[in-house]
Amino acid sequence: MKELGYYNGKIGELNEMTVPMNDRACWFGDGVYEAAMVRNGHYFALDEHVDRLFRSAAKLGIAVPMDKEALKTLLNDLVKQMDTGNLMAYWQVTRGSGPRGHAFPDGPANLWVTLRPKEINPGSELISLITDEDIRFLHCDIKTLNLIPSVMAAEKAKQAGCYECVLYRPGGRVTECSHSNVHIIETPFTVDELMAADEIIVSSSTAPCNRACKVNGQAVGMKRGDLFEALHKAVFDEYYSVTE
Amino acid sequence: MKELGYYNGKIGELNEMTVPMNDRACWFGDGVYEAAMVRNGHYFALDEHVDRLFRSAAKLGIAVPMDKEALKTLLNDLVKQMDTGNLMAYWQVTRGSGPRGHAFPDGPANLWVTLRPKEINPGSELISLITDEDIRFLHCDIKTLNLIPSVMAAEKAKQAGCYECVLYRPGGRVTECSHSNVHIIETPFTVDELMAADEIIVSSSTAPCNRACKVNGQAVGMKRGDLFEALHKAVFDEYYSVTE
Repeated sequence: MKELGYYNGKIGELNEMTVPMNDRACWFGDGVYEAAMVRNGHYFALDEHVDRLFRSAAKLGIAVPMDKEALKTLLNDLVKQMDTGNLMAYWQVTRGSGPRGHAFPDGPANLWVTLRPKEINPGSELISLITDEDIRFLHCDIKTLNLIPSVMAAEKAKQAGCYECVLYRPGGRVTECSHSNVHIIETPFTVDELMAADEIIVSSSTAPCNRACKVNGQAVGMKRGDLFEALHKAVFDEYYSVTE
Repeated sequence: MKELGYYNGKIGELNEMTVPMNDRACWFGDGVYEAAMVRNGHYFALDEHVDRLFRSAAKLGIAVPMDKEALKTLLNDLVKQMDTGNLMAYWQVTRGSGPRGHAFPDGPANLWVTLRPKEINPGSELISLITDEDIRFLHCDIKTLNLIPSVMAAEKAKQAGCYECVLYRPGGRVTECSHSNVHIIETPFTVDELMAADEIIVSSSTAPCNRACKVNGQAVGMKRGDLFEALHKAVFDEYYSVTE
């Protein structure tokens, strides 16, 4: 298959797949998700992603409809159906189906998976960023499908010709980006500290180590290339060794 | 039809309807919605609901795929296909379809409608409430599909055997309930002021005037039955006259 869609056991090409209108994803974004890279048919950090999915689901009282081992087996089996072994795997669990009503439904949760060809972003090009206030709800430890604020921030970055939008809470404390993490090789930091940092790194599952040279049009970082190179090499050495 | 589902021109019984897996509702909850009551085939406050939908959509940069008049015509036409004229109409517009990616897609938005038999809640029984901190994002003027915090609060109220959960921000300022408004016949108020109010009214499109007698197990309100009765009568007089 070129792009695979899976829904509760049903499998097909992603752009032909449909799901019940009454899945609670459709009315409430009521679910949790994970995404992981696959290379040469091998997942990177699959245990960690599956563990996090179960943690997110538990925090919302969603019962994942199979155990961790069964989920990993399924995710690995689906990869074998693809035309290429270099993929992004994405999966989500939604809180069942039923007529729209806020309180929890009786039935089981639903499992969705998509597999699409993708190469990891090698982090070999400098990136530019913008900043914006983080207006998301305060439980961002849970990877939910309530992603409108992230959508709006990602589009804002795109419109500015930038790679990402760095989000901060009132007072300037930086949280993360719209769909990436952001690091300055320090502990929790503010936008001012970000602007003054020696190096700024933006990371995600699909783009694990990108170096930023500009924030809101202002030159930033780029003062410790030796450190950046060492970190970049360590990340990709691990990625390529696990997915050989 | 018993329960109708509509998606971009396709119509069927709701529990048999499917939607593309790649609709952005499925990945991001990326859409806005409205719900309105219908009695004897007549909508209540349809102009206001349609106006609000367009306001919500505009705030998120979503282009509703038809103009207001065409949407009202469609909503009225769909009612004619139903076995009963006493319904709840629900409709939402999602930001198009496409492979999962945060930034906006190129294609048009999608229009969803559901119609289900429902009688308005007459507000003739006293209700009990609980309270909880409002952890939602700060743009609750936009009726989005990012509703997980509302889902969690509604379930908490249900588990407590209560009608609704009153949400408040840090400092105690009351905002609204999980899927209803809450009033004490005063301007913006705190939880303390709620507990001390002469009367507490909870309202929504489907249950426009309910009187609360208990919050977190404590007796509240019930001190100005004359005022409550006058308001209750005014609300339902208007509802029944518009939907005769």
